Amino acid sequence: MTGTHHDVAEFALIDRIRARVANRGDVILGIGDDAALLQVPAGKHLVVATDTLNAGVHFPHDTAPADIGWKSLAVNLSDLAAMAAEPAWCTLSLSLPESDTGWLDGFLDGFLALAAQHRVALVGGDTTRGPLSVCVTVHGFVEPGRALLRTTARAGDDVWVSGTLGDAAAALDHWRLGTAHDEVLRARLDRPTPRVALGLALAGTAHACIDISDGLMADLGHVCRASGVAAELDLEALPASEALRAAYEGEQRHALQAAGGDDYELCFTAPAGSLDDIARLAAQAGTAVTWIGRIVAGEGVQVFDADGQAWLPSKVGYEHFG
Amino acid sequence: MTGTHHDVAEFALIDRIRARVANRGDVILGIGDDAALLQVPAGKHLVVATDTLNAGVHFPHDTAPADIGWKSLAVNLSDLAAMAAEPAWCTLSLSLPESDTGWLDGFLDGFLALAAQHRVALVGGDTTRGPLSVCVTVHGFVEPGRALLRTTARAGDDVWVSGTLGDAAAALDHWRLGTAHDEVLRARLDRPTPRVALGLALAGTAHACIDISDGLMADLGHVCRASGVAAELDLEALPASEALRAAYEGEQRHALQAAGGDDYELCFTAPAGSLDDIARLAAQAGTAVTWIGRIVAGEGVQVFDADGQAWLPSKVGYEHFG
Repeated sequence: MTGTHHDVAEFALIDRIRARVANRGDVILGIGDDAALLQVPAGKHLVVATDTLNAGVHFPHDTAPADIGWKSLAVNLSDLAAMAAEPAWCTLSLSLPESDTGWLDGFLDGFLALAAQHRVALVGGDTTRGPLSVCVTVHGFVEPGRALLRTTARAGDDVWVSGTLGDAAAALDHWRLGTAHDEVLRARLDRPTPRVALGLALAGTAHACIDISDGLMADLGHVCRASGVAAELDLEALPASEALRAAYEGEQRHALQAAGGDDYELCFTAPAGSLDDIARLAAQAGTAVTWIGRIVAGEGVQVFDADGQAWLPSKVGYEHFG
Repeated sequence: MTGTHHDVAEFALIDRIRARVANRGDVILGIGDDAALLQVPAGKHLVVATDTLNAGVHFPHDTAPADIGWKSLAVNLSDLAAMAAEPAWCTLSLSLPESDTGWLDGFLDGFLALAAQHRVALVGGDTTRGPLSVCVTVHGFVEPGRALLRTTARAGDDVWVSGTLGDAAAALDHWRLGTAHDEVLRARLDRPTPRVALGLALAGTAHACIDISDGLMADLGHVCRASGVAAELDLEALPASEALRAAYEGEQRHALQAAGGDDYELCFTAPAGSLDDIARLAAQAGTAVTWIGRIVAGEGVQVFDADGQAWLPSKVGYEHFG
């Protein structure tokens, strides 16, 4: 308990961050004052999301600083992607057990590499002492009426998902067991790809959208509840990476795909008959998408196996709080 | 390490928060989707600040949940006040060791009471498992060119401060020693008053402004460095509360006033000759202000005692990182 919020060592960290930050024309005033001054484009809505990653909860303690930096921004950009928002700015609140410039430099390597990919300017934040924790808030823009919501799925819609499912959960499973390590899977856990271009491309065509952080069934369940509909998924249609197929098969692979979290793929619904449009938009965005089921009247998410039998994973979701 | 970001207990917490949140007409979409959709008034700049409070670092472990809630928003609103920004929205990222609805209800009592005072809408965030930590991001508006900055103090300016100094540091000193407890002082530590109305009133008249989180000398030092000027303060002019005078005298009191943190008063500079204007604006805002010195050419913050001798507190500032 120090009684102050900042100190000499902390200012050195802030200077270190400030020296590496890129700018944008719409940042009137960035890091260095009590707050940032920003210019939202006329006629656009501001889109804001925030997410915290805590050591040992959201990433294994042995995660490289650069990967923590990347992931802390990626999970937030993924929220903007799911809204079809164009990313613009972020703030970073970093709690560190001790002042460690080597750790910070590594963290910034990952954080700023992803920020540069999406032209996101880091405009403010704080560093403070505490258990390792990273809180990021991202800001983006969307034209009024163009945002993709959770409330707008309709019975009859197709359900789609980007990329592949279960890779991050597989890497976590490997890490937990300590038995195997696959670079490709681990990279999917440590460096998720926010599907920003896909989200933007889908605006105006897709109906509802969410990013998959808690697992496909759980997250699509949120969409269904918010929209007052149900979903029927085809288990065999769920996309799997080669790495996942090589490491897991059958029931275990299916559970990872349907219920494993941390993939940060987009799950979205679109009107039946928009198959060609979706394929074209996804190709333009450079992101593979797969049809996995449909929205129907009712409630809940049901998954059907190759025999048309209702299927449940052995464990749906995990709990933070006991 | 759970591998997912949210879980059943966490959704219950989020529902609990959502049920109590007030709305504003400029919140297009609040809590409940991947991100919030917000409408910044045409022609205004967006002002964004973020600050994290960690248990044991920014507040004693025995702090009441309602006070933690209040303070976590107050320190952020104080940043907006120092920019002369009108508060509008906030996000909340809450890390809790365990799901505790009683704790959360208390936290929200304090957080939402202050939010209501300033018509701030809570528009998003997350709750997650981890050591107790509260990350808040606040958003406000300011007309272009009206923000109060750290870079705009000029030689010849008067230096002013709002309220009284040293109360929060005194309460912390009491808490550390475990010898005394004063309700008035402790309330100043636990429930700081963000000087929002004063900041707004000063726009257009004051030159530079900062809020005092690290201590008067340290924070005015930031203004001086940013503006390329120096400050000369009158030790006897620093305002003290009756509670502080009753508990501390002489050197010890002066040190708390000049170097103690956590008061969240505004320190600002204004042109010499604007004394009457400042007094009128402060009265309109309902906040006492006190002249404490002047800005001069040079660098650094010097304090002079009643005999005109240069004075230094025994300890300036505290360090988070060792």
